[in-house]
Amino acid sequence: MPRVSRRGLLAAVGAGAAGTGIAVAVAAEPPAPTATDVVPFEGAHQAGIATDVQAHLHFAAFDVLADDAAGLAGLLRDWTAAARALVSGRPVGEGGAVGGDPLAPPADTGEALGLPAARLTLTVGLGPSLFDDRFGLAARRPAALVDLPAFPGDTLDPARCGGDLAVQACADDPQVAVHAIRTLSRIAAGRAAVRWAQLGYGRAATVDPSAPTPRNLFGFKDGTANVPGADTAALDEHVWVAADDALAPGERWMTGGTYLVARRIAMHIETWDRTSLAEQEQVVGRTKGEGAPLGGSREHEAFDPATLPTASHVRLAHPSRHGGARMLRRGFNYTDGATGLGRLDAGLFFLAYQRDVRRAFVPVQQALAADDALNEYVRHTGSGVWAVPPGVGAGGWWGEQLLA
Amino acid sequence: MPRVSRRGLLAAVGAGAAGTGIAVAVAAEPPAPTATDVVPFEGAHQAGIATDVQAHLHFAAFDVLADDAAGLAGLLRDWTAAARALVSGRPVGEGGAVGGDPLAPPADTGEALGLPAARLTLTVGLGPSLFDDRFGLAARRPAALVDLPAFPGDTLDPARCGGDLAVQACADDPQVAVHAIRTLSRIAAGRAAVRWAQLGYGRAATVDPSAPTPRNLFGFKDGTANVPGADTAALDEHVWVAADDALAPGERWMTGGTYLVARRIAMHIETWDRTSLAEQEQVVGRTKGEGAPLGGSREHEAFDPATLPTASHVRLAHPSRHGGARMLRRGFNYTDGATGLGRLDAGLFFLAYQRDVRRAFVPVQQALAADDALNEYVRHTGSGVWAVPPGVGAGGWWGEQLLA
Repeated sequence: MPRVSRRGLLAAVGAGAAGTGIAVAVAAEPPAPTATDVVPFEGAHQAGIATDVQAHLHFAAFDVLADDAAGLAGLLRDWTAAARALVSGRPVGEGGAVGGDPLAPPADTGEALGLPAARLTLTVGLGPSLFDDRFGLAARRPAALVDLPAFPGDTLDPARCGGDLAVQACADDPQVAVHAIRTLSRIAAGRAAVRWAQLGYGRAATVDPSAPTPRNLFGFKDGTANVPGADTAALDEHVWVAADDALAPGERWMTGGTYLVARRIAMHIETWDRTSLAEQEQVVGRTKGEGAPLGGSREHEAFDPATLPTASHVRLAHPSRHGGARMLRRGFNYTDGATGLGRLDAGLFFLAYQRDVRRAFVPVQQALAADDALNEYVRHTGSGVWAVPPGVGAGGWWGEQLLA
Repeated sequence: MPRVSRRGLLAAVGAGAAGTGIAVAVAAEPPAPTATDVVPFEGAHQAGIATDVQAHLHFAAFDVLADDAAGLAGLLRDWTAAARALVSGRPVGEGGAVGGDPLAPPADTGEALGLPAARLTLTVGLGPSLFDDRFGLAARRPAALVDLPAFPGDTLDPARCGGDLAVQACADDPQVAVHAIRTLSRIAAGRAAVRWAQLGYGRAATVDPSAPTPRNLFGFKDGTANVPGADTAALDEHVWVAADDALAPGERWMTGGTYLVARRIAMHIETWDRTSLAEQEQVVGRTKGEGAPLGGSREHEAFDPATLPTASHVRLAHPSRHGGARMLRRGFNYTDGATGLGRLDAGLFFLAYQRDVRRAFVPVQQALAADDALNEYVRHTGSGVWAVPPGVGAGGWWGEQLLA
């Protein structure tokens, strides 16, 4: 637990800057960050996966511009150093936003000064395109990091797909998440550039397991059967790459890592809203109010998926049809304003972590793309897959297992 | 203070729906809405103006499709009825999201079921384009509802400008604000269509006057000298249209109303971030850390604007240069992902309420557009002006003073 808040540091820097002629006074003391406000950065696995879901997302995919492995490693080292400050609620760099040399740009951009750490997590992934000949990584590409196949009905926008690197920033304050992505983007100048980005909101879970399951923009609970972040046995079985995963020698760096699939799923909100309650429930396979499997009465009750409508979403995605495969889903609703046609530009930014894409997202999405009754109401417009390296230890950095 | 929460109603409807064969069980009781969670809808002035600023914004401008005044009035009546439910945290319509006829679309879209009222406010404005011959309102257009002039440097996108109607939805939960705009848009089907929309976040003030002033995405405090929502004398002087405002007979319906200007101000984030701290402070006219006027040491201290740099933003916008004109600003930061060039698509969605646009926004923006040093770092990409009718009384509806 850090002892210095952004504002505490601001005050300290202000005192130090008095000699420079820049007037910076000590502001009123804010509440000190609490243990629940700061998510530990170090660990066997990266934070932001099993972490209780925060209220806001800023996700960014990057193209790497650095031209060799040393440049890539340097970027990831610099990102890690900044991330340690950001997740602790501290400004980045010497002097932060208001100190240091007044004739130089501030090290920190400043918009999060005075804001709490807000449970910020930063999670980094490495895309298939990174494992080409630019960085000598072709032989280190994990077999499980497949290029996603084309699924029936895909309407992907190339401007919202792929990326050498991905950063998922989650926080309970959107300004904290935006500040984090902006800061990493700025640090990357000349070495990596944002390829695409997505903001999301509002599906916050809490540490209270009795809290209601959040609802997607179709008005249905989404995540009832999700892998709980506190269920270490389920995480070991479905999310974390294990040492005995028959990893080839060149890909052992992924032990303790996981794989991330992102899909931007646009919803035809207006069409859905003209559909009857009975039809909506038949399409999903659950009731709208309670979220109970059709024919049942309680959200979390056990059910036989074979009793649900043949084309219902819940039946087709059920683990029993896919060799028991489950994913840790961490999706966020998004609303990007209105389309040119006066409709809500909104949907679900689906994020799912899994031990092997080939046994989880790919077969599940193949089943859904072929038959899901929900397909009439959604369109996949963005996509990406990334290998998420294991966590960072004391003095460590993102990707060191691959690049050190 | 309402006694029925969305979830309480859901439980009640569930019980009533048992006979329809639709299984809807009673969910765990959520915390009841508190007085601070529900902003009163009725009053002399519309809510969402002097109301303490919430954490999230969903703003939408509409084109009216109804072809006569009766159709327009009907829409505004229906919107008002829905707004009364929405701001109380109740679903709209008979049966809400999960009751009524299962073969009909649910009256409420459902994504806010179980969420608190979240201090939702809905504020409606009438644009200059509404006062044409479609609705017979040409003679009722207030003289103060001018078309905004073209300002030097404007780079407005027509797809983000104007609109017959505007709705500002503000709430502490983004899903609650999005649900409100979606619901009004759905109710308007065939009578009005969304022309453009904007989401924003993160500049929440609180009822605590000692709380820090929020920061914009340039990292500076923004709103230090704002008109406080609790200062009724300042509101009467600068925001509310008074009966003695020499209103022509046809425009007396605006007594107790106000005028809203919206500007989508894109920020050149990357350029700003390469600018020295000293230059940033000279451009703004205040220090970055504390927000004190340059030469001073405290954010809220009195200062002579003539002592600030000639082209600084704070000096040029100062009320002393504009006949004492002040506006109640209610802006939100926005981030709409990334531009195609890998830059952050971000800035300030400026919303300002004022008694007369001709004496407030127009002259201030003329001064800024001509000389503001900040112009190098911003671009106005969206714009609109609306007459905001007075508040709604018991049984009343938005715009009744004009249309009844």
